[in-house]
Amino acid sequence: MRSDLQRRLLAETLGTALLLAVVIGSGIMAERLAGGNVAISLLANTAATVGGLYILIEVLGPVSGAHFNPAVSLVMSLRGALPKSLFAPYVVSQLVGAVLGAWLAHAMFDATLLQFSTKVRGGTGQWIAEAVATAGLLLVILRAPAPKVAAMVACYIGAAYWFTASTSFANPAAAFGRMFSDTFAGISPASVPGFVAAQLVGAGLGALIHRSLDA
Amino acid sequence: MRSDLQRRLLAETLGTALLLAVVIGSGIMAERLAGGNVAISLLANTAATVGGLYILIEVLGPVSGAHFNPAVSLVMSLRGALPKSLFAPYVVSQLVGAVLGAWLAHAMFDATLLQFSTKVRGGTGQWIAEAVATAGLLLVILRAPAPKVAAMVACYIGAAYWFTASTSFANPAAAFGRMFSDTFAGISPASVPGFVAAQLVGAGLGALIHRSLDA
Amino acid sequence: MRSDLQRRLLAETLGTALLLAVVIGSGIMAERLAGGNVAISLLANTAATVGGLYILIEVLGPVSGAHFNPAVSLVMSLRGALPKSLFAPYVVSQLVGAVLGAWLAHAMFDATLLQFSTKVRGGTGQWIAEAVATAGLLLVILRAPAPKVAAMVACYIGAAYWFTASTSFANPAAAFGRMFSDTFAGISPASVPGFVAAQLVGAGLGALIHRSLDA
Amino acid sequence: MRSDLQRRLLAETLGTALLLAVVIGSGIMAERLAGGNVAISLLANTAATVGGLYILIEVLGPVSGAHFNPAVSLVMSLRGALPKSLFAPYVVSQLVGAVLGAWLAHAMFDATLLQFSTKVRGGTGQWIAEAVATAGLLLVILRAPAPKVAAMVACYIGAAYWFTASTSFANPAAAFGRMFSDTFAGISPASVPGFVAAQLVGAGLGALIHRSLDA
Repeated sequence: MRSDLQRRLLAETLGTALLLAVVIGSGIMAERLAGGNVAISLLANTAATVGGLYILIEVLGPVSGAHFNPAVSLVMSLRGALPKSLFAPYVVSQLVGAVLGAWLAHAMFDATLLQFSTKVRGGTGQWIAEAVATAGLLLVILRAPAPKVAAMVACYIGAAYWFTASTSFANPAAAFGRMFSDTFAGISPASVPGFVAAQLVGAGLGALIHRSLDA
Repeated sequence: MRSDLQRRLLAETLGTALLLAVVIGSGIMAERLAGGNVAISLLANTAATVGGLYILIEVLGPVSGAHFNPAVSLVMSLRGALPKSLFAPYVVSQLVGAVLGAWLAHAMFDATLLQFSTKVRGGTGQWIAEAVATAGLLLVILRAPAPKVAAMVACYIGAAYWFTASTSFANPAAAFGRMFSDTFAGISPASVPGFVAAQLVGAGLGALIHRSLDA
Repeated sequence: MRSDLQRRLLAETLGTALLLAVVIGSGIMAERLAGGNVAISLLANTAATVGGLYILIEVLGPVSGAHFNPAVSLVMSLRGALPKSLFAPYVVSQLVGAVLGAWLAHAMFDATLLQFSTKVRGGTGQWIAEAVATAGLLLVILRAPAPKVAAMVACYIGAAYWFTASTSFANPAAAFGRMFSDTFAGISPASVPGFVAAQLVGAGLGALIHRSLDA
Repeated sequence: MRSDLQRRLLAETLGTALLLAVVIGSGIMAERLAGGNVAISLLANTAATVGGLYILIEVLGPVSGAHFNPAVSLVMSLRGALPKSLFAPYVVSQLVGAVLGAWLAHAMFDATLLQFSTKVRGGTGQWIAEAVATAGLLLVILRAPAPKVAAMVACYIGAAYWFTASTSFANPAAAFGRMFSDTFAGISPASVPGFVAAQLVGAGLGALIHRSLDA
């Protein structure tokens, strides 16, 4: 018999792994095929992420809530929607899953498993962008009617890939996993702390705006 | 305690700001990445707008009706669906939000905050296009079943970006906000009055067609 | 007071006009912007058609059934789902609407209103394609659950733009209207009879397959 | 009177044929129009497949379950969701349908009917990719709520076209049918056994993960 905890952590690990495999794998495929047109690569990367994120949330939401994202787990835990004792195990599962997902993408594309990105990302604009992207994500998650949350999160991230200057990571686990991939979707380790800090600010901002919209 | 009015105006300001940030931000991103192929830029701009508009209407609709558009507020007010006393505050919120959204996009992309577009838009064809685009938008809004309105408006605008010669602003607040951005999505201040006039004619036309379809 | 008949014919005329305006208008826009890459033009044309068709069926379906297509009206009439006396008025409305839609697209893009296409289409492969496209369309229409029919028809046509060699007109009124546009979506008058004949064969085939799938 | 068995096998044959016609036909169209940019071809191929798969599952699901895939029929049969006696007839119908679909695509595009692909596919990365792709497909099918299964499978395959290195065949009948087409979507006969073996491993893996997520 599998316990409820085991099932939840399996879902978070598996979901985050597949999310990262989708993001990184489609980035590799797109870059290989697009002949140097970055807009075409990002369109393909966006389409794959939207489709993949949608089904991962639909499939795994009933098991774990389908966070795949420490910023989401943090807000859910502070709001009492996730038992406080589950916060740390959720985050560990997400981080482990993120790395496994990067490796899975590399294995599928016959690339070296262990890589570190050399793509520097950051600066005021991109940090504002990550804060905005994460604030929007939280707003969507906190206000979406349950049957629509998967489609809404997927559509939101698809839009945010384009309207934020950072292509919207909006997820500390995604930043962590992408660090392990020197490909289209990668981010250099030194750029991760700035992104994560901005994401946490954004998550708080999103929760605040959510509260301001309630009576 | 926040009043109902405060919540509504916050929703209209926030929603219009994010809508403009999506439209302008994705336009900047697309133009930077597309290597000069305008069709690819507009495809990306369209995809981001469709996804963003969908979630903004779903998220903020329950609070304010998610107009984000003075032409919509005008028709709703004339039809009694929006209290007459709210019309002016709605429009002010939308215009303020539109400018803030342009500035947010500029901040994310490390661009000068205060800009004025130099892109001249207009002529008979584009004015007809704005009238058609706005008439269609009103028809969709007035006839859509409530649970489908967000998806329908988003799909409609996605189509209208391509089938109207003006790329379908269909919204005086969007025209106002885009005036403040000398980027892909911009419109020169001198071109705005023609667009807005055409949009208002179109809004009236849409409301008329709506009535003709009823028994 | 508008009669039920007047409302239905208005819906068929308006819907077919807007459908053709979407198909032809987005074709013009795409061809102007795509720098000669026909695949990019057809992707944009497809996206606009899918979005436009979806909302037209949702918006006008409750009024007239949203046929916009003589082949659909024919099958519906033979099956008793459309009163026999309405068949001829429906077809006339659709044909008139189709031409008006082409003219509306031309007006928006500052092109000559009255045009005739010079694009020759036909040959065994394309005729088979039109029969297959129309058979599939009828199958979707006859078997779709009512709340999903708009999305299903739109998705089907989107796929059929690409998998059929003729880019799937699948509609005699669309062939008729496109004849009046010497643009991306046009078809030369001499090519129309072959397309329409293939479409009618396909419509019959679709109705037959539909019956074969029932007990 | 048509028996239930006849209707089911007709649905599986027809559905697999149309699925292959969509995949192969849109690949031919895309390659002809894309001017050598493979990413644009694959984007078009993806869009057509997503739309086509969605409507095929919606339309034929109520008749046969809309497997169109021996790996799916195998798992359904082992789980008792498909009568054991129907497994072999389902697979035969799917394989026959797949070849007919390839031929239909060729007929529509005026190509030689009988072809054999010369495109070699395989290697560790692609075999891992096929196992991952098929595991994910089974997971989606086994866990999707019934009213969402068509949209979820379609979105999943759309994402998998990009995030798996093999462009996600995930279906032994698809591999079999594509063998008969020396076009964009083809696979050389010698490459089929490796793909099918990987798919069957993946199907088992998907069923296992499905069980691990249940209490």
